[in-house]
Amino acid sequence: MTNIKTVFVTGGAGYIGSHCVLSLLEAGYDVVAIDNFANSVGQEKAASLDRVCQITGKEVIFYKCDLLDIQQLDEIFNKHKFDCVIHFAAMKSVGESMKQPLIYYKNNIIGAMNLLEVMALHKCYQLVFSSSCTVYGNPAFLPITEDHPIGNVTNVYGRTKYFIEEILKDTVNSDQKWNIISLRYFNPVGAHSSGLIGEDPTTNFSNLMPYIAQVALGKKTSLSIYGEDYATSDGTGIRDYVHVMDLAEGHVAALKKIQSNKVDLKVYNLGSGQGTSVLEFVKTFEKVTGVKVPYTIEARREGDIESMYANCDLAKKDLGWTAKYNLEDMCRDFWKWQTMNPNGYKKSETTTKNGKTNSH
Amino acid sequence: MTNIKTVFVTGGAGYIGSHCVLSLLEAGYDVVAIDNFANSVGQEKAASLDRVCQITGKEVIFYKCDLLDIQQLDEIFNKHKFDCVIHFAAMKSVGESMKQPLIYYKNNIIGAMNLLEVMALHKCYQLVFSSSCTVYGNPAFLPITEDHPIGNVTNVYGRTKYFIEEILKDTVNSDQKWNIISLRYFNPVGAHSSGLIGEDPTTNFSNLMPYIAQVALGKKTSLSIYGEDYATSDGTGIRDYVHVMDLAEGHVAALKKIQSNKVDLKVYNLGSGQGTSVLEFVKTFEKVTGVKVPYTIEARREGDIESMYANCDLAKKDLGWTAKYNLEDMCRDFWKWQTMNPNGYKKSETTTKNGKTNSH
Repeated sequence: MTNIKTVFVTGGAGYIGSHCVLSLLEAGYDVVAIDNFANSVGQEKAASLDRVCQITGKEVIFYKCDLLDIQQLDEIFNKHKFDCVIHFAAMKSVGESMKQPLIYYKNNIIGAMNLLEVMALHKCYQLVFSSSCTVYGNPAFLPITEDHPIGNVTNVYGRTKYFIEEILKDTVNSDQKWNIISLRYFNPVGAHSSGLIGEDPTTNFSNLMPYIAQVALGKKTSLSIYGEDYATSDGTGIRDYVHVMDLAEGHVAALKKIQSNKVDLKVYNLGSGQGTSVLEFVKTFEKVTGVKVPYTIEARREGDIESMYANCDLAKKDLGWTAKYNLEDMCRDFWKWQTMNPNGYKKSETTTKNGKTNSH
Repeated sequence: MTNIKTVFVTGGAGYIGSHCVLSLLEAGYDVVAIDNFANSVGQEKAASLDRVCQITGKEVIFYKCDLLDIQQLDEIFNKHKFDCVIHFAAMKSVGESMKQPLIYYKNNIIGAMNLLEVMALHKCYQLVFSSSCTVYGNPAFLPITEDHPIGNVTNVYGRTKYFIEEILKDTVNSDQKWNIISLRYFNPVGAHSSGLIGEDPTTNFSNLMPYIAQVALGKKTSLSIYGEDYATSDGTGIRDYVHVMDLAEGHVAALKKIQSNKVDLKVYNLGSGQGTSVLEFVKTFEKVTGVKVPYTIEARREGDIESMYANCDLAKKDLGWTAKYNLEDMCRDFWKWQTMNPNGYKKSETTTKNGKTNSH
């Protein structure tokens, strides 16, 4: 039994982080969040969290902080008493990670290790960690359960998640004071139903949903689908898409689990449990939005996995969590966010003649 | 073709490092070495390297430096031009690593990453890395070849070596300028034939050879052998012991390989290729030294591997390297070192009455 009141959220201004902060506030937790804006270059303030406060009518304490700056991190822990940490902060582009492995290893691994070090120093032993289904590598069986072998990872980004999971395991084994839940996300999409927060990739991205939206908005001419000759129903790759608000609720469920049980280290898949092909996704998007998404079929990309979807029975049993939203919800909510904010959080910014940017 | 003149050696004052520096000097390389004395607490100067200079009549430039201090490391790279790096520096106690995983991950992983970062900054892309047969975990087949699966590692120390190997692989994949050879050591024992340098563990150790020597010297009453019911010839565990001077020569062979070929990333086992049981080891030690080693049989230790020995054909083929010394040589040379230096490098130190330590 651990009474959890104040939650420290790293990467709190990011896509999943901001939606999770919203759910935490609504569930009555106090939130202190940090972000280094690594995935939203040039940002200085957390526009996403301003919106979260607007939606919830509650406050978030926010610091711009990089986890590599262990001193600033320590100072933040000196200022507040945290009952639990949710660790989202990470560099997350698969393609970029292959080109800049040292930068990915440094940011993700050292970031996580600094966080663990400062947590132990301040006797905060409760952690929920953002892991990923990429730790499973190429699936040996489907749907994937948590006891599927991990480590045969096909990219550097996933390897950073896998290494951190191993470090967490060793940490818990060495000191029973720790309570850690690692959540392996499948493919998060969608946005909060208000349309006020959503995914706002400012660097190159290859995730399906933002790509489709760019085509639907006319910013790109057509969607590239890589491979139509996979051994799937329609030949295109199959993934498990999960609504970001379902994910956010999964974190609240994990906190409640830690609150009521000594968990040591537990790992849960968070997915919809449904496999959806790229073509099915596109068709659902077109149906929900009424917008046509032209696409071209390209050759398979090296390293792409044919089919991947989760068995989420364990999260249901242990956390009482299941995904509530379906693919239509994901498309509708994402489209609402995208049409309300065609330039993401830069929507309300205009460039004046002398080049200055004003916020309205 | 890379002309290698000056070699930077991390962990150069350690057991394997000092023997390797000796071989490098004898092969005509200039050596700059660093050490943080993590494995020889309280030391401020590299007694082992003083002895190496005494044996070879050559000079070594030495800095006390911790790889976690990336600024000092960068300053050393500013002062010298290195053609290749040999990276020995690491915390290495299996038992300790399970109790202090974060300290092991921090030292070994961040140390290696800082080194890679500074090397790239100074355009030094040649590296020989100290890996270990622990990366293989519990052997799926014997003798172990380099293509045996890795990653199913049974302890944190081994996991740090495995993670670094993966990081090296990704680093070479991302930038073809790198030339990296990873050497997977089996069980290094013995000492230089002069008896002037050898293994001097100052923290708790569980390695067989130093333990036997302590018993032979009468400092411990008996050797504990863990398990006599393994499926081996005499029931005790089997390992592949390799003379430390053979290992040292393996590094020179690796340098020569890098000098003459673009290697990208290559991995080689360095072992004798012979499996030796604990009891065989003890009997050989008794025969060579004429000293009795009393032992007791204890229960198996959790996580201990039954049998492990190398196939070293690849090192022979690619590097022209094979182990030259046999088990008797290892016992003889180690015993010479141990009897000449019963207190290791502290041998020549006496404590005066006012508690000060004088070096003679």
